[in-house]
Amino acid sequence: MQGKNKLKITLSKKMGFCFGVKRSVNLAKNALKERKDNLYMLGSIINNPQVIEYFIKRGVKIVNNLDEVPKESTIITRAHGISPIMLKKAYQKKLSVVNTTCPYVRKVQKIAEYLYKKDYFIVIYGDKKHPEVLSLLDTIQNNALVINSIPEAERITTKKKIGFVSQTTKNVYDFYKLASALLNRTEELRIFNTICKSTTERQKSVLELANEVDMMLVIGGKESANTTRLAEISKNQGVKTYHIETKNQLQYKWFHSKDKVGITSGASTPDWITNEVIDKLKEWYC
Amino acid sequence: MQGKNKLKITLSKKMGFCFGVKRSVNLAKNALKERKDNLYMLGSIINNPQVIEYFIKRGVKIVNNLDEVPKESTIITRAHGISPIMLKKAYQKKLSVVNTTCPYVRKVQKIAEYLYKKDYFIVIYGDKKHPEVLSLLDTIQNNALVINSIPEAERITTKKKIGFVSQTTKNVYDFYKLASALLNRTEELRIFNTICKSTTERQKSVLELANEVDMMLVIGGKESANTTRLAEISKNQGVKTYHIETKNQLQYKWFHSKDKVGITSGASTPDWITNEVIDKLKEWYC
Repeated sequence: MQGKNKLKITLSKKMGFCFGVKRSVNLAKNALKERKDNLYMLGSIINNPQVIEYFIKRGVKIVNNLDEVPKESTIITRAHGISPIMLKKAYQKKLSVVNTTCPYVRKVQKIAEYLYKKDYFIVIYGDKKHPEVLSLLDTIQNNALVINSIPEAERITTKKKIGFVSQTTKNVYDFYKLASALLNRTEELRIFNTICKSTTERQKSVLELANEVDMMLVIGGKESANTTRLAEISKNQGVKTYHIETKNQLQYKWFHSKDKVGITSGASTPDWITNEVIDKLKEWYC
Repeated sequence: MQGKNKLKITLSKKMGFCFGVKRSVNLAKNALKERKDNLYMLGSIINNPQVIEYFIKRGVKIVNNLDEVPKESTIITRAHGISPIMLKKAYQKKLSVVNTTCPYVRKVQKIAEYLYKKDYFIVIYGDKKHPEVLSLLDTIQNNALVINSIPEAERITTKKKIGFVSQTTKNVYDFYKLASALLNRTEELRIFNTICKSTTERQKSVLELANEVDMMLVIGGKESANTTRLAEISKNQGVKTYHIETKNQLQYKWFHSKDKVGITSGASTPDWITNEVIDKLKEWYC
């Protein structure tokens, strides 16, 4: 007999698709309407397997590099960005390009290009293998150091001038700590807070929610940097936290009647996935 | 019977006239050689009363503003800087100008001029009434906020971009703390560490020395910002510290035989004053 007593479910104030992801998915859907054939996706447009599955089912082919794309077809680029160099290659190959690069990601690329032109030693706070960081590095021909911790910042030898930017989905508090650690490495430190507002808002929001609940469900792709960060923030508050991709990963034993359950989802998690999770919980505890 | 037992005197590794002060005093001395009459000093060239007395005795007149200077005379400007606006006024009045502005101070002025032109909200870490800060403010028509503490930094409302510079003689560790406090006030924070190396070296040096001695003598003008800072750093290490201008302020009762005495002096303190202090101590305890 499953739960007579309801769970108390509270949604995070800010969650789900951000502006950039919404835009990216819409651009890809429009491309699908207009030209169904010869549609190639250059890596996952966003880090959510269910969304990618949606496009694969409709005939979009996923490729890892331009060599796999036949001439004169159409490519859809990732929200995480494509470097100007790659873009040039695509045009040389006479490909049509549906560029879904998030405008905030493009802004970081432009800042990095400027810093590179002005001879700054560029430091990026980011995950070395994240697609956004890879396309950012490609934009400035790898002329940057990617760091992810204070010791890495402290190993930098003295520089004339340092420019510091961040992957858009990083933790803003850690960004400040790293910036502080760079202060005594240089005469001029130029810091651009390129963490996007949606990311910061979602992080603040889950931090608040973590203080009010017994457990937290974080819904979104396991590869999604911003979703993983939300789970980390919740865990760091000492709250039991589960990071799941879909309702199928829910386990009945995780819950007890009358539990206060917090729910948030990443910037690349579509609402229908979150709604399915909530429906399943309600089915168990109603 | 005065001291059979010697004091153990240790001099700070870095002390006394810095490059800018040396240059300033030499330029003023040269002016004295070349044109004895109609020589006016626009404020104290450096913050040391004994050095100023030296020039007054040789006929140099100290004035506070250009109105007090008769046409076609010569003015000697301060090491702390003269703003381009004041300089223009002096030339309009057909005055000859011996500009002894420290090159490091001029560098801060140039950075501030640049930041002003580029629409940065300018924050200066400094003492609001210090002559260097006043001439810096004059350079950018007062378009800057001078701060001296964390709460003042925290009161700044969010800005698009902030440029942060320092009075050349401030404490570098506090400069870093203030820079960190500015991080969440803006999208772009551009930090120029304009604290001069001599200042930083002297501060590090007195910090080391403070850990080895029973008491510290800091020799230099009471108005001298950098000298006052040296005394503060020593005091903060829990060492009994006396800030004196000349040997005449030494008190016999401060010392006990076999005491380990540390000595440092400000960037505007001439060696002859420091030597007189040491001679007096040796006279007492030899």
